[in-house]
Amino acid sequence: MIIQLEKNISTNQKAQIIDKVTALKYKTTAVKTQKGEYLIGIGKKEFDIRNVGQMDGISDIHIVSDDYQLVSKKWKVKPTVIDLGDGVMIEEGGMALMAGPCSIESEEQIDKVIAHLVKNNVKIMRGGVYKPRSSPYSFRGLGNDGLKMWYKAANAAGIKIITEVMQVSQIAEMYEYVDIYQVGARNTQNFNLLDELGKVDKPVLIKRGISGTIEELLSSAEYVFSAGNENLMLCERGIRTYEIASRNTMDINAIAILKEKTHLPVIADPSHGVGIRNFVEPVALACIMAGADGVIYETHEKPEEAYSDGQQTLNFDESEKLINKMRRVFELRESL
Amino acid sequence: MIIQLEKNISTNQKAQIIDKVTALKYKTTAVKTQKGEYLIGIGKKEFDIRNVGQMDGISDIHIVSDDYQLVSKKWKVKPTVIDLGDGVMIEEGGMALMAGPCSIESEEQIDKVIAHLVKNNVKIMRGGVYKPRSSPYSFRGLGNDGLKMWYKAANAAGIKIITEVMQVSQIAEMYEYVDIYQVGARNTQNFNLLDELGKVDKPVLIKRGISGTIEELLSSAEYVFSAGNENLMLCERGIRTYEIASRNTMDINAIAILKEKTHLPVIADPSHGVGIRNFVEPVALACIMAGADGVIYETHEKPEEAYSDGQQTLNFDESEKLINKMRRVFELRESL
Amino acid sequence: MIIQLEKNISTNQKAQIIDKVTALKYKTTAVKTQKGEYLIGIGKKEFDIRNVGQMDGISDIHIVSDDYQLVSKKWKVKPTVIDLGDGVMIEEGGMALMAGPCSIESEEQIDKVIAHLVKNNVKIMRGGVYKPRSSPYSFRGLGNDGLKMWYKAANAAGIKIITEVMQVSQIAEMYEYVDIYQVGARNTQNFNLLDELGKVDKPVLIKRGISGTIEELLSSAEYVFSAGNENLMLCERGIRTYEIASRNTMDINAIAILKEKTHLPVIADPSHGVGIRNFVEPVALACIMAGADGVIYETHEKPEEAYSDGQQTLNFDESEKLINKMRRVFELRESL
Amino acid sequence: MIIQLEKNISTNQKAQIIDKVTALKYKTTAVKTQKGEYLIGIGKKEFDIRNVGQMDGISDIHIVSDDYQLVSKKWKVKPTVIDLGDGVMIEEGGMALMAGPCSIESEEQIDKVIAHLVKNNVKIMRGGVYKPRSSPYSFRGLGNDGLKMWYKAANAAGIKIITEVMQVSQIAEMYEYVDIYQVGARNTQNFNLLDELGKVDKPVLIKRGISGTIEELLSSAEYVFSAGNENLMLCERGIRTYEIASRNTMDINAIAILKEKTHLPVIADPSHGVGIRNFVEPVALACIMAGADGVIYETHEKPEEAYSDGQQTLNFDESEKLINKMRRVFELRESL
Repeated sequence: MIIQLEKNISTNQKAQIIDKVTALKYKTTAVKTQKGEYLIGIGKKEFDIRNVGQMDGISDIHIVSDDYQLVSKKWKVKPTVIDLGDGVMIEEGGMALMAGPCSIESEEQIDKVIAHLVKNNVKIMRGGVYKPRSSPYSFRGLGNDGLKMWYKAANAAGIKIITEVMQVSQIAEMYEYVDIYQVGARNTQNFNLLDELGKVDKPVLIKRGISGTIEELLSSAEYVFSAGNENLMLCERGIRTYEIASRNTMDINAIAILKEKTHLPVIADPSHGVGIRNFVEPVALACIMAGADGVIYETHEKPEEAYSDGQQTLNFDESEKLINKMRRVFELRESL
Repeated sequence: MIIQLEKNISTNQKAQIIDKVTALKYKTTAVKTQKGEYLIGIGKKEFDIRNVGQMDGISDIHIVSDDYQLVSKKWKVKPTVIDLGDGVMIEEGGMALMAGPCSIESEEQIDKVIAHLVKNNVKIMRGGVYKPRSSPYSFRGLGNDGLKMWYKAANAAGIKIITEVMQVSQIAEMYEYVDIYQVGARNTQNFNLLDELGKVDKPVLIKRGISGTIEELLSSAEYVFSAGNENLMLCERGIRTYEIASRNTMDINAIAILKEKTHLPVIADPSHGVGIRNFVEPVALACIMAGADGVIYETHEKPEEAYSDGQQTLNFDESEKLINKMRRVFELRESL
Repeated sequence: MIIQLEKNISTNQKAQIIDKVTALKYKTTAVKTQKGEYLIGIGKKEFDIRNVGQMDGISDIHIVSDDYQLVSKKWKVKPTVIDLGDGVMIEEGGMALMAGPCSIESEEQIDKVIAHLVKNNVKIMRGGVYKPRSSPYSFRGLGNDGLKMWYKAANAAGIKIITEVMQVSQIAEMYEYVDIYQVGARNTQNFNLLDELGKVDKPVLIKRGISGTIEELLSSAEYVFSAGNENLMLCERGIRTYEIASRNTMDINAIAILKEKTHLPVIADPSHGVGIRNFVEPVALACIMAGADGVIYETHEKPEEAYSDGQQTLNFDESEKLINKMRRVFELRESL
Repeated sequence: MIIQLEKNISTNQKAQIIDKVTALKYKTTAVKTQKGEYLIGIGKKEFDIRNVGQMDGISDIHIVSDDYQLVSKKWKVKPTVIDLGDGVMIEEGGMALMAGPCSIESEEQIDKVIAHLVKNNVKIMRGGVYKPRSSPYSFRGLGNDGLKMWYKAANAAGIKIITEVMQVSQIAEMYEYVDIYQVGARNTQNFNLLDELGKVDKPVLIKRGISGTIEELLSSAEYVFSAGNENLMLCERGIRTYEIASRNTMDINAIAILKEKTHLPVIADPSHGVGIRNFVEPVALACIMAGADGVIYETHEKPEEAYSDGQQTLNFDESEKLINKMRRVFELRESL
């Protein structure tokens, strides 16, 4: 149960509501986000919702039977809009494009990608400065110095930055230089990280776990939301299956299912979803047709020289063709 | 290695070729299909292809390194076209639609589906008369009598029939009444059935196994082709994964990958691929955008009363909307 | 619901019982096996079991809520004993060993394996004469002639034969020469084959499907049982997962779970379960400790020369050591 | 390549070795653990190992072709022994038992578990004070205060503590009160956490990821080792598959495979591996037979009242029986 509280609710009123809900054997959690204040009640007993709903200090009350509550579409029918400033929005009815290299490598590389994005009117650049790598001996990214260098160039060009945050201590360090914090597939259930991202006033994109369920992804988003940050989006990036012909199995179903279950924007990552350059385009177009609100993919001037993920990275020609096709597919989808 | 033989090759010439290839330590298999004659050589040694290729009786020779040979695009660049007669074709550059109920239930049901298909200019009707069911106590289909009844109505309306064949003895029994034999997901590796379908002169659609790999699907097609029947198409219908929010996980990657690996038409089955009515449409549209040459899906006048698969079956309104959208998506794809 | 019928039940009595059960909105299926006669009722309505149970002609009645009925332990507490004759039994409280090559290759090979089994007092020999192979160009087995040759030698040595049957037409052909029909992992849901094996009076071992669930395996056994043949056993042989360090993932849980759910013997196949020679021994011993009633594994005089599965096949030394260890482990298990 | 350096190596000698290896186009990483000093070289070029090996300052050099190096058995044949003090060891040839509740709940609960362990001569107690939970509204553990309370009682009873650390900031906080840091299945690839645990002088147990591969588990251990901490053990706790009859699929193969690939002790967690109380015993015994060096499992005085994981937790009677059986199985295994 989600109880939306009135802005000017008194301490006394709040205590009375908590008492009432507790008496119903519902465990309550008080949630205060940057946009509003809620009481979450978790329990099983059936009760007459009006008995609670008519209490003073409550603006609305909703019964949500899922494990996740605040990210559910059942109470918040209006889709979440993420406003990055300067007119850059991520929202249902739009198609946010986020492109860039797997890893940030150098100033020259950054400049070339930015030029490519500007040319094609793409407003958000992806890239990793902290890279989670299976082996401790692999390149682990340029770190915050790389991020600062990137920010300088991106900011000058009016490009927004999305990049992965791997641990709590990086949140503050990166704060000034990022527009979207990305939670990677290996950290989808790093609950401490999620908790802390709930305290920040910048948007967060959460990738689905390597073999995470759709429900787990929504529950991870619930962590961030209930810790205070409503500026959230989800990302389908393929799941681990027995099939070895592709790096992951892009779960196209998940895009359609998430669009029904949550009010949060849903982004598709075809680069990781299929993991092979030739197939990024058809998979990306399919994801848009399935309902994705945006696409994040990897591009690099010379993919064969990229520090990481070269096999799934598009060169600028391929990227430009993809952008144009995605826009036409999106346009058709919206007209259907 | 695939050696295409000339039509008028002599027995002596053929023997000499086999000797030559055997001397290279390649295991040879003679293949005679309804369209041509081939020698397949399986081995590892490298050799100068011209030494073989210049022998008398050979029209062409190709090195194919995959486990599957004849279904590979590496030797046959021109896509396979399946001609069902009366102008009904399944081919690259077209979008074959196959719709109908999970199970054939009654004459009345058949008539209603046919009327729906005719109205929407869909030329191929799906439906099961032999139903593979996990439990022996479930409805197992109307059998060949049901098929005859169906054929009578479909034939009168100019509608082609695709239906599942479960065992060798049914092939002959069904022959007069089917236009496409369907091999179900539980029979993808029923090699005896595949062998026998290779001897028939009607098209075969092979569904991917419940947890079959893309390579296994191609190898199963190789069985039918090498046993004589080139009129083949493949069908992606979702795979079994850990995710329980959908019945199966539609492998959108597989559609793109199959289109690159084989000259056979690739059909998508979104009904089984996602298994939930609400999501059939977005998944179907995504599959077309990923490159599918056709879509097979379930529709029924009253899905909630269907003998089987009601939860993933569209009613006629939903089906009509889907057909119209699929045609627009296909049109866009071809224009990109 | 399972209604066990009395041996001398009259046609009239049976009709009355069916009427009664049908009136409860239960779908009835009459089952006549080589050992008894049953009525299976599938439905959902609750009712007083005594109303049915007291009718004439009924020896016992049981409520079983699972999809599978006759193979459930809920009604038949006493474990099924499979008697192969000459004192060779497969049963709870025993440890049946079945060893031999993947493929039957030659008379010499057969003789060597038989000598190895006789030396070690192993009574059942495994081997394939019909081999399901992914590629049509691979060795597919010596067929029924190979089986006859094998039978001659095995019979003379007092060794029982278990071998895979791939299609309905082979059942009769193989009948005289086999002691146990094996249904392979690709045929676990070949329902026509299961139906026909229900009409035979020889034991059947059903392997779990390549990605089959435990419930599907039990339902497949239900097919054979309800078609008349109670002489059944199940085999866990590893499942397909994302892990590529082993050929399959041996599902040790399944052994423990099956032992609780069904009265049928449960056999473990560590050769396929792990697929790498070095690990067959520890996995086999683990399976016994988890409760397996028998073990089937691959052995060959020279595994590196075997026609198939050499990488997971033990040589005779390894096999002998394994046999001795399995017997000690089994002895301990029974003493715990 | 692993180059073991001599204890008294000079800075100059080290620089010369790095130059030499770098000249071979191998990327070098200097590793200094609590036990020794190494240079890791990652590259592909073949070279004469003696050219490097004979340089001054090198005590030994090993070619290891895997992605993981220092945790490989290829260079360190002697198994790692973990000494917790007071004669409590975790090592090959022993069987370490770690038992206790899922969550630490109260002083009373702690005392009862300790009494049970003392009675049965179990020296290590498990329990969670920081609980990773899918939902933010679930019980998340008593935190460090709970740990202190637990430590007081355990220390007095001579019982060692293993408990999960979820984030970097907890490492120091927990340091005084833990004997083994546990890295949970959701943190197996939390590389920052692994890095920091490499700087601690207390043992670490790393659980396999929820759908982690064996190679990924070894690579995660490589993180900790290469950051300085050799006191490591690995834990197989079941993997995520399509099978829903058990909570996870215990990968019995992994135990046998890990024992061959690494010198680190391998622990089995049957409670999570199967997730159902009735089956913990057979699965635990199977894991020992497959080669596990220890078993960690859940026990609670009243599992049905446990805050978490009650369905897979043994009561003290069941636990005592299991302990006795595990000891007999272990004894047999060592005698084979």
